[in-house]
Amino acid sequence: MQYTWLFGWLGETRERDVKINVICPATDIHVRKYSRQEQVIVHETPELYETVVKPYIAAFPASRTQWVENILSGVSEQNKMLYSSSDFVILPDMKWDLKTMTSLYLVALVRDRTIKSLRDLRKRHVPLLQSIQKEAYRVVQGKYGLGRGSLRMYVHYQPSYYHFHVHIVNANQAGSLGMMVGQAHLLDDVVSLLQLDPDDGPAIFERMTLTYGLGDQHGLFDSLRRAQQEVQEP
Amino acid sequence: MQYTWLFGWLGETRERDVKINVICPATDIHVRKYSRQEQVIVHETPELYETVVKPYIAAFPASRTQWVENILSGVSEQNKMLYSSSDFVILPDMKWDLKTMTSLYLVALVRDRTIKSLRDLRKRHVPLLQSIQKEAYRVVQGKYGLGRGSLRMYVHYQPSYYHFHVHIVNANQAGSLGMMVGQAHLLDDVVSLLQLDPDDGPAIFERMTLTYGLGDQHGLFDSLRRAQQEVQEP
Repeated sequence: MQYTWLFGWLGETRERDVKINVICPATDIHVRKYSRQEQVIVHETPELYETVVKPYIAAFPASRTQWVENILSGVSEQNKMLYSSSDFVILPDMKWDLKTMTSLYLVALVRDRTIKSLRDLRKRHVPLLQSIQKEAYRVVQGKYGLGRGSLRMYVHYQPSYYHFHVHIVNANQAGSLGMMVGQAHLLDDVVSLLQLDPDDGPAIFERMTLTYGLGDQHGLFDSLRRAQQEVQEP
Repeated sequence: MQYTWLFGWLGETRERDVKINVICPATDIHVRKYSRQEQVIVHETPELYETVVKPYIAAFPASRTQWVENILSGVSEQNKMLYSSSDFVILPDMKWDLKTMTSLYLVALVRDRTIKSLRDLRKRHVPLLQSIQKEAYRVVQGKYGLGRGSLRMYVHYQPSYYHFHVHIVNANQAGSLGMMVGQAHLLDDVVSLLQLDPDDGPAIFERMTLTYGLGDQHGLFDSLRRAQQEVQEP
């Protein structure tokens, strides 16, 4: 699978007007992801997570994240690796051209396969998350010369794939849909909430109702909307 | 002061390409707010809030939010009022044209002047926040025919003005800078965190480190950046 992108100008002597992303060959999942979708705000209670979302995640075949396993095991992308330890790796995201600093986009992939998403994060994961922050700052400062105030790190919920990963982008890359409140959760906020969590009892991300916009092409759309309507219209 | 906006097309038989916002007369604060700014990510600890941000908020003259007082006391905008109670009002945001449903934009202004920002929210405010949600759903359903899944409600931190208010927008209006993670906090997430807060001790928004991107023209930029550098480079 190949990702690339191009810029377009709608006239001469202008700033660029459009960015065109090319994914080839595109799977049906890609087409659904990038189609214009009606967004509906859903409120995922802990109960909805248990009854709807968790089974949805568990039903994915391992092949869906085989590309992550290939990176972690050293089969692919090794020439791009920026950091690797027994806990996680950092490498450029496939959407980045490795050149344009304002659109710097890295991703950290953890080795702990038990963390499927934000919902699985516990207080014991704080050292892992802080280590990702520290190494991301170090790598980006050393290789690209950007200071720590220039990085925005966040996780998606729902994510595109259920193997825990962190998006690491230039703080000046603004207005991308992936940074929208609801879908994106700042890693710093996540760490702060986990640190403030009591030492015993269910963790904050087990207890919170998570609210986010879901496109009508998302695999969870029908079941979550139906479940919400039953709650709201008894 | 007048707000208005226009659409522009860069060719015939196209979807519109640009939206031009006009603010006239524009104050120096408007010019700074809309200038292209370098974004720096700041980590506002509870200590930085107490020593830097709280005094900054307290130093604003009352005249800066006189326009809010005029709305609350019935001096201005009364013909636009969509809801009013002893706790809060809801009316269209000045940036909305009152017609285009995809860019529906309302604002709720509370009457409790002691709530300056997200930092001041406590568990006792949950009924107020839920009442804002309920009335926003009711007003938008009744007047504009949009269901509750079509509304995204959030608060800004830092906000543009320190009188607590909630942004109420069409969930399909995506990619606006005001919805960026860090600056925007979903009202639903805020309510969920307050509900999960213990009944005694300091509240979650007193204890959290809040992380957000701050433009270099913001009044807090120099002092927060200096304070952070002292922490990071001892």
